[in-house]
Amino acid sequence: MAKTKYVYFFGDGDAEGDESMRAELGGKGANLAQMAKAPLSLPVPSGFTISTDVCDYYYKHEKNYPETLNADVDKYLSKLERSMKKKLGDEKDPLLVSVRSGAAISMPGMMDTILNLGLNDKSVLGLAEKTNNPRFAWDAYRRFIQMFGDVAMGVPHEKFEEAISEVKAAKGITQDTEMDTSDLQTLVGKYKAIYKAAVGEDFPQDPKKQMWAAINAVFGSWMNPRAIKYRELNNIKEGALKGTAVTVMAMVFGNKGNTSGTGVCFSRDPSTGENVFMGEYLMNAQGEDVVAGIRTPEKLSQLDEENPAIYKQLCKIRDRLEKHYHDMQDMEFTVEEGKLFMLQCRNGKRTGAAAVKMAVDMVAEKLITKEQALLRVEPSQLDQLLHPELDKKAEKAAEVLAEGLNASPGAGQGQIVFTAAEAEEWKEEGKQVILVRKETSPEDIAGMVAAKGILTSTGGRTSHAAVVARGMGTPCVCGCEAVTFPSEDTVQIGAKTFKKGDNITIDGSTGRVYAGLLPVNEAKLSDELDTLLSWADEIREKSVRTTASGKKVRGFDVLANADQPGEAQKAFDFGAKGIGLCRTEHMFFDPAKLPSFRNMILADNTDERKKALAKILPLQEKDFYGIIEAMNGNPVTIRLLDPPLNEFVPQPAAKAEIEALARQIGMDVNELTLKINALQEHNPMLGHRGCRLAITYPEIYEMQVEAIALATAACEKKGIAHDVRIMIPNVVTFKEVQQIRAQAEAVIAKVNEEKGTDLSFEIGTMVEFPRAALSANKLAEYADFFSFGTNDLTQTSFGFSRDDYGKFINSYLKQQVLDEDPFNVLDEDGPGALMEIAEEKGRSVKSDLHLGICGEHGGNPASIALCYKIGLNYVSCSTFRVPAARLAGAQAVINANNAAKAATVKKAPAKKTTTAKKATTAKKAATAKKEVKARKPVAKKTTATAKKTTAKKATAKKATAAKKTTAKKTPGRKPAKK
Amino acid sequence: MAKTKYVYFFGDGDAEGDESMRAELGGKGANLAQMAKAPLSLPVPSGFTISTDVCDYYYKHEKNYPETLNADVDKYLSKLERSMKKKLGDEKDPLLVSVRSGAAISMPGMMDTILNLGLNDKSVLGLAEKTNNPRFAWDAYRRFIQMFGDVAMGVPHEKFEEAISEVKAAKGITQDTEMDTSDLQTLVGKYKAIYKAAVGEDFPQDPKKQMWAAINAVFGSWMNPRAIKYRELNNIKEGALKGTAVTVMAMVFGNKGNTSGTGVCFSRDPSTGENVFMGEYLMNAQGEDVVAGIRTPEKLSQLDEENPAIYKQLCKIRDRLEKHYHDMQDMEFTVEEGKLFMLQCRNGKRTGAAAVKMAVDMVAEKLITKEQALLRVEPSQLDQLLHPELDKKAEKAAEVLAEGLNASPGAGQGQIVFTAAEAEEWKEEGKQVILVRKETSPEDIAGMVAAKGILTSTGGRTSHAAVVARGMGTPCVCGCEAVTFPSEDTVQIGAKTFKKGDNITIDGSTGRVYAGLLPVNEAKLSDELDTLLSWADEIREKSVRTTASGKKVRGFDVLANADQPGEAQKAFDFGAKGIGLCRTEHMFFDPAKLPSFRNMILADNTDERKKALAKILPLQEKDFYGIIEAMNGNPVTIRLLDPPLNEFVPQPAAKAEIEALARQIGMDVNELTLKINALQEHNPMLGHRGCRLAITYPEIYEMQVEAIALATAACEKKGIAHDVRIMIPNVVTFKEVQQIRAQAEAVIAKVNEEKGTDLSFEIGTMVEFPRAALSANKLAEYADFFSFGTNDLTQTSFGFSRDDYGKFINSYLKQQVLDEDPFNVLDEDGPGALMEIAEEKGRSVKSDLHLGICGEHGGNPASIALCYKIGLNYVSCSTFRVPAARLAGAQAVINANNAAKAATVKKAPAKKTTTAKKATTAKKAATAKKEVKARKPVAKKTTATAKKTTAKKATAKKATAAKKTTAKKTPGRKPAKK
Repeated sequence: MAKTKYVYFFGDGDAEGDESMRAELGGKGANLAQMAKAPLSLPVPSGFTISTDVCDYYYKHEKNYPETLNADVDKYLSKLERSMKKKLGDEKDPLLVSVRSGAAISMPGMMDTILNLGLNDKSVLGLAEKTNNPRFAWDAYRRFIQMFGDVAMGVPHEKFEEAISEVKAAKGITQDTEMDTSDLQTLVGKYKAIYKAAVGEDFPQDPKKQMWAAINAVFGSWMNPRAIKYRELNNIKEGALKGTAVTVMAMVFGNKGNTSGTGVCFSRDPSTGENVFMGEYLMNAQGEDVVAGIRTPEKLSQLDEENPAIYKQLCKIRDRLEKHYHDMQDMEFTVEEGKLFMLQCRNGKRTGAAAVKMAVDMVAEKLITKEQALLRVEPSQLDQLLHPELDKKAEKAAEVLAEGLNASPGAGQGQIVFTAAEAEEWKEEGKQVILVRKETSPEDIAGMVAAKGILTSTGGRTSHAAVVARGMGTPCVCGCEAVTFPSEDTVQIGAKTFKKGDNITIDGSTGRVYAGLLPVNEAKLSDELDTLLSWADEIREKSVRTTASGKKVRGFDVLANADQPGEAQKAFDFGAKGIGLCRTEHMFFDPAKLPSFRNMILADNTDERKKALAKILPLQEKDFYGIIEAMNGNPVTIRLLDPPLNEFVPQPAAKAEIEALARQIGMDVNELTLKINALQEHNPMLGHRGCRLAITYPEIYEMQVEAIALATAACEKKGIAHDVRIMIPNVVTFKEVQQIRAQAEAVIAKVNEEKGTDLSFEIGTMVEFPRAALSANKLAEYADFFSFGTNDLTQTSFGFSRDDYGKFINSYLKQQVLDEDPFNVLDEDGPGALMEIAEEKGRSVKSDLHLGICGEHGGNPASIALCYKIGLNYVSCSTFRVPAARLAGAQAVINANNAAKAATVKKAPAKKTTTAKKATTAKKAATAKKEVKARKPVAKKTTATAKKTTAKKATAKKATAAKKTTAKKTPGRKPAKK
Repeated sequence: MAKTKYVYFFGDGDAEGDESMRAELGGKGANLAQMAKAPLSLPVPSGFTISTDVCDYYYKHEKNYPETLNADVDKYLSKLERSMKKKLGDEKDPLLVSVRSGAAISMPGMMDTILNLGLNDKSVLGLAEKTNNPRFAWDAYRRFIQMFGDVAMGVPHEKFEEAISEVKAAKGITQDTEMDTSDLQTLVGKYKAIYKAAVGEDFPQDPKKQMWAAINAVFGSWMNPRAIKYRELNNIKEGALKGTAVTVMAMVFGNKGNTSGTGVCFSRDPSTGENVFMGEYLMNAQGEDVVAGIRTPEKLSQLDEENPAIYKQLCKIRDRLEKHYHDMQDMEFTVEEGKLFMLQCRNGKRTGAAAVKMAVDMVAEKLITKEQALLRVEPSQLDQLLHPELDKKAEKAAEVLAEGLNASPGAGQGQIVFTAAEAEEWKEEGKQVILVRKETSPEDIAGMVAAKGILTSTGGRTSHAAVVARGMGTPCVCGCEAVTFPSEDTVQIGAKTFKKGDNITIDGSTGRVYAGLLPVNEAKLSDELDTLLSWADEIREKSVRTTASGKKVRGFDVLANADQPGEAQKAFDFGAKGIGLCRTEHMFFDPAKLPSFRNMILADNTDERKKALAKILPLQEKDFYGIIEAMNGNPVTIRLLDPPLNEFVPQPAAKAEIEALARQIGMDVNELTLKINALQEHNPMLGHRGCRLAITYPEIYEMQVEAIALATAACEKKGIAHDVRIMIPNVVTFKEVQQIRAQAEAVIAKVNEEKGTDLSFEIGTMVEFPRAALSANKLAEYADFFSFGTNDLTQTSFGFSRDDYGKFINSYLKQQVLDEDPFNVLDEDGPGALMEIAEEKGRSVKSDLHLGICGEHGGNPASIALCYKIGLNYVSCSTFRVPAARLAGAQAVINANNAAKAATVKKAPAKKTTTAKKATTAKKAATAKKEVKARKPVAKKTTATAKKTTAKKATAKKATAAKKTTAKKTPGRKPAKK
């Protein structure tokens, strides 16, 4: 094995590393190397980077370094000294360096930077003399002692602050800038004393000792609690990164007078995406000064007037960097005595709107391909574009009362109500309300529709409240434990108590709850987003992949889950190719249908049941008609009744409701109570529901199928296009499908005869219990399509109840017993494995069997990628997740294609076992997106011809100047601590 | 294709068919053919059998016959006439025939027999003259009209009864036998009138027309409601049989005077198994007369005095038939004017005790091999031998109050109590009690131990009551819907109301409930059973099979599920090779542990929890010590805590209990109520239980592991052999095993250090959720063994809650949507498929991975066979099912070996797809047992050397003369109707 190279030089127009070496050099080190060398050849202070392999070694060898490291660093330090023509610790003209951390992924939790390293009691004098600026030299020295003490040696930084205060107080001044050289010299003395008291030894005068202490500190910071926490919060798994690199770099100073300065800039507007060069700078300043807010920074455009030469040079660099990186750049620069130095560049963070606009613009500018554009936008960013958002400034200023789960994005606000009935009443009175409840149930549906937001104290992201809210696009915060109900008319949220009618604001994007009404910005679908999504559709349509079972599958559609005509219309507007799941149960909560449906449930015999169902039939027909009409010939997949019947009657504890119902339907209260009790179940998830109801009471599905057939016949008569499919839920054996299908076909034949039509319907099945997946070959004989119910499939393959797993899932995630919440991200080993089995077995019988998913996972990007890989023909998700799913689906296609290309480029490795191969593929798919972003974009033309594209020419003129977030990160500032 | 042969002749010392053709000729026809031909060459009246292929054809061709059938029947009828030297319908000397039905499996629901066919107004005169017995001839004629009218043409038989009453009334007589020839002639006239009125045409005088009508009737009876119901009740699937055959056979008469007679006999005693020839007979009688009870039949031994020649001939036939069939025979015979005819022979039905004794005796007699002996006994029959049984006579006489599920076999009786506390109190007062409840919960455990029987109104065969009762061997009837509770102190059972303290008797073998105390027989394990089971052990030990994944697996053990030292001892006595499942949760209901355990559950923090657990530790250690000691070096598999914590505290509705608990533990009632509410779950089956508790509260399992290690260390010090294994429940990801294993090993190391021991434990996992099975390769890296929890695996793969599926399972079974209740019989497509996946994946990592099952299925024979096939190393079942499982396991081995032999004998068929192959194997395994019984036993010596056999020489002397069931089935009697 070749000896690992541990240290990499950059400077003097060349570098040993480049941007492809983020894993070894960290983002900072890799980009510095890239900037330093041709073809960019930008002015970068010389330096060297100790690679992440050293960090890896350090933690694997009880915090020891590779044997050769010391010699290597010495060698590279000499090279740096030669390059800068100065020596570290030189008493006349000392080389000063900064020591910086940097992992492959930017990680604010880690130690950041130590500046001015190399100063000591002697070299400070040399620096003072050489720069002819004693104040500058002594200020640099005291800053170094403070930073080194605090960051590298853990001296409490309050001690240093106290010393400054003492000095200023003694002199009667208030500002740091008022301190003169002698004050700073006094301060240095005090600092050294503080250092000695805290560390137990003198402040090190040997610059190499200083440097090694700083290097140790950087590597040590990789495992500090903040960094660990950061990785935990950002879902960066242990072992995913090798560690941090350390960059040792010559100092340049922006505070050497009026020909010096420092600034940060963006190649485009990170808030709006507009193609304008923007940023901020300060002359005669270090980055620290900008952060401290002592002086107000100037707009970058001002630099053109103040120093046109530097500004022009910066503009050229901006253009060159954008062309090189094919992406918007976030840059840091320093001007030292009229000479420009680039200290950092990286792909800039941006808002969702900006991400979309830049991506589309850059395609128009031929800077990137459509595929690259599609990978530039996080699907989750689209949520911001589809919902009202809290005003950012107001949000920052407001006090967060409590934080729950961010269940359905967007800001909602209004007056608190505690029941669905109140929500309806108040809305009719023209009020905006937030429905606050322990949890919601299907009975609350009307109230949920009326509310501007929903807040619950229990339930996860797939609870009833969350699912319904997402379906309606209503902001929702659920599982907010800080919400309690001291009485019927009050709610305590965190420390504050509210009465009915009090105003609150919830943010379903963050899960936060606020008192009062915060300012809100309505957001709209931009033309650019429309364009981007049309590209996404194109790529999905043309996609082809081979499944694990060897089948070639073409296309990958996005459908919507929608139950109401209005919702169906919205789904269509959002680009859904049809309805993948139309739940029929919500329709029964309609006050027009509920009494008859309850009569049906409480009937003593088949005749009574049929009578009650006959009353519902025309109403169901009307519902279906509306949805079919809205989808205008696109597929509408109607699922027959799914939930257990007890969800439609009052709960046993609700005595008053039971009494009311008894009066309403003219039944004895005791008899009704008995019947309701008999409907209760120990484990309703595994109970008498779905097609099981059809085996015991065939008349229910017969009514529903009749309503479907009648609605379709009516559409046919009116010349409305239709493509209606019937879906049977909860199937575990092919005999259920066989029997229910036969019954349905008999009903359809009857309607055809009555109406003189010739209708036929695809009849398919949900695959939501493991046995259905495991016997998919048998199901496929009787089912025209499968739709995976991944929520139930997750519940049953894990044995996790989505209503109860909140008691332990946090422990699982925290202890990394599970990597992801399986109700958020479709799990590959459980439900995913079953889906793969179902795909293989199902298509072994019907090679073109249509497969889809209609669970909540259908809107989650990682899950969508897994669905694509497994070979599904479509995903169906709630209406407001359709745009994100269209994008995520395209990304899945692109990533899979890229991975396939990469695999064929690499030499085929020795054959692995099937299991190992699968695991590898999975890992690859999961990380592909990040890899692609990091990889140098392949300059290739997209072959996709814009068949249906509605893309309008991307222009910058529409860029609305939204609240600008000005990133204020420059070298030289104090490391951020939380 | 060769023309199908539809008709088969027998008689004159030869036959076209033989016993191997049960499928075509039915049991009756096949055995008649076999008896008729060499080597048996028994006196059988000639006849011919129309095969089941005709029945199959008949139903597949809208009740038409194959074209050639008419000619075939004519041909064979002529042959029969030649053989008997008489002609059908001959006016002087008519041939009379019987027409009988007969399927491959005896089926009482079908039409049975029409006798005396061939008589008409003319031939009756010939018969009278030829026999010189006009009364006999006219009686035969009127019987024929009645039977033909009733059975073949559907004339209501009451009409015929009324006519007899009229004739007798007119003459002033009461007995049928008092009617003389002219009375019978009058009756024939009346019968013909009745026939004409009902059928609409004259009684047919053409004997061929009579014969075809009878043949039609037999084939028609295959689909009559009784027959369909019978097949449904006996789980005979549609299509499993081709239909019924029809046998047309010359009549012989036992009522032709004192040298004629009829009887039924058994080659051994069907009640006790004793090797004595026994039976009953009547001279000058037809079978009908015996059934009618007009005369008391004689014991067979009496025949030796009355007609020694016939008796000797019969004895010889008995010996020949037993030698030929290698099994106990049930025979019917008729003596016509001094000549013996055999009318039927078949393997006789027998009690469990008799089955065991005969099987063991026959091996000693070298009549059968040990393998054959093992196949002779139904595992379910052993239940009768292990539990007290209701006295059969008393049972028949008693009124059945209600019928529930036969959940745990045996008779239990005593005074009714309604709570577990009462059961304990009353028992201490020396009373015997039956605990009658809606359902039981783990809190009732002490009361359940105290009770002699348990009766519940809800819950299935795997409900808490049923599982616990079977574990304890306590008779239990559950899910008895006719049990209601009008008040706290009364129970209504069917139509009767009982108070606390009233006596009832329940029969857990049948599910029936009776008032009062019925006589009960205590049963004991016989020496013969011991012998038989030792052979079973031998065969299982030596077994080898190759799993679907290609692994060779040796041996197949039976272990027991036992939680208490006493139970463990009993399991050992019953032959269990260890404890496959020791549940630790039942221990916590011990009043000594419950308060501390509740304190643990209700603790606010880890410290409080640890304090409470510390109190339980020594008590758990004592429990484990007892069990390890009882098993004396055999494996003891201890499962760590499994159920959700809320099972250990009162339910929210139990206000009084909550108040009592609050006082006891010194907690505010409201606070306690809140905590108890917080513990409730929507779907507890899928909730916070098993190892999930260990992820959230590691200290619970740590305490349990410490108790296990301490108990084992104590055994070690005392020189007690031990083989303790630790099992983790509810695992879904390898990380759970990895983490819990590491924690357990740390605890064990600590105990080793404290006690100076060097203990190590196998640590394995339950596989009871699909995800565990699907990722078994990962689990196998950290688990030393797998134990399949097929109950949860069934619940989750089907999505059926065992507590709730009662609402729909009957509809599923009735409509044949499911063939079996999956909680009774392990389902191959759901949990079975997952087990197969787990076997393959698990052993792909650890080729010798030990696999077992500890669900309730472990005691079910069909499930045991599936477990064997999948490649499990053992099954573990409740203590009282151990003997049956030992037998069923051996049968699985034998059937698999036989099937493998049969497969190698047959030419290897063209390669099928994997799926098809699996299905075939499964079907084969399922039907193999029946086939083996039907097949001619291969005369081969068993090669099994009795290594550990404790078999005592089988002797007949111990046969206890239990209540004898005398089967009274002879030809000539009226078809049974229910």
